[in-house]
Amino acid sequence: MENGFDLDARLAADTLALGDWPLSRVLLMRNRLFPWLILVPRRAGAVEIHRLTPADQVLLTRETSAAARVLERLFQPDKINTGALGNVVSQLHMHVVARRRDDPAWPGPVWGRGLSTPYGGDELVVLADRIRTALREEITAIQEIR
Amino acid sequence: MENGFDLDARLAADTLALGDWPLSRVLLMRNRLFPWLILVPRRAGAVEIHRLTPADQVLLTRETSAAARVLERLFQPDKINTGALGNVVSQLHMHVVARRRDDPAWPGPVWGRGLSTPYGGDELVVLADRIRTALREEITAIQEIR
Repeated sequence: MENGFDLDARLAADTLALGDWPLSRVLLMRNRLFPWLILVPRRAGAVEIHRLTPADQVLLTRETSAAARVLERLFQPDKINTGALGNVVSQLHMHVVARRRDDPAWPGPVWGRGLSTPYGGDELVVLADRIRTALREEITAIQEIR
Repeated sequence: MENGFDLDARLAADTLALGDWPLSRVLLMRNRLFPWLILVPRRAGAVEIHRLTPADQVLLTRETSAAARVLERLFQPDKINTGALGNVVSQLHMHVVARRRDDPAWPGPVWGRGLSTPYGGDELVVLADRIRTALREEITAIQEIR
């Protein structure tokens, strides 16, 4: 099923890969302004959610919700923002972003603003470890409702 | 199930109601710059997708895809954008927007730009009729995969 899947070079450059869920590769944006995960279904050529198979659409929904729960647990955000735009990078990818009333883009969207600050020192590695642990716990929950 | 559901006043003011699907009220944004539907699950107090029941999450996924297909059929967009933000209006609502490379926000998001132009004359009524017809056809397709 993963034949031909290849992560877009721009997504790869902007993120750190955290692992693979049943459908999606889970990425962490290299942007300390917003806790921000990206799910990329490992389906070659996928661009639009509504062209995934119905089963894959359900998987993506479950994984998006699992990513939201991970962010809520770790960051206690005021709101989760999810979005699939793809106007710049066409490879299908779902953004899941933890938003706070005091973040620099609030209440606007995080997309299209150019607001980005890299993680410093070992901050990214430490955070990635914390998220990976939470991802593993959530994947168990996903598989239980399958 | 619809006990206590009441459409947010700002969503009501910004849109024209096109009808109700099994889960969601379907709204058309009063903005001729972008063909733009909004799905509002008729669940009182709903704010986050991941807190809907798993069954409602699947319904919302199907309805979002059906809305995307309607927009594709009627407008032949270059890309569909979907998003659930809720930073301004907390009532859960899913945006489904038909984007074109020559639209005024491309490749940025439609949200947070303040780009809005009202439909003129009977343009809104004519468009709403066209979309309603397509929505009725899509709802049949949704119900068949139930």
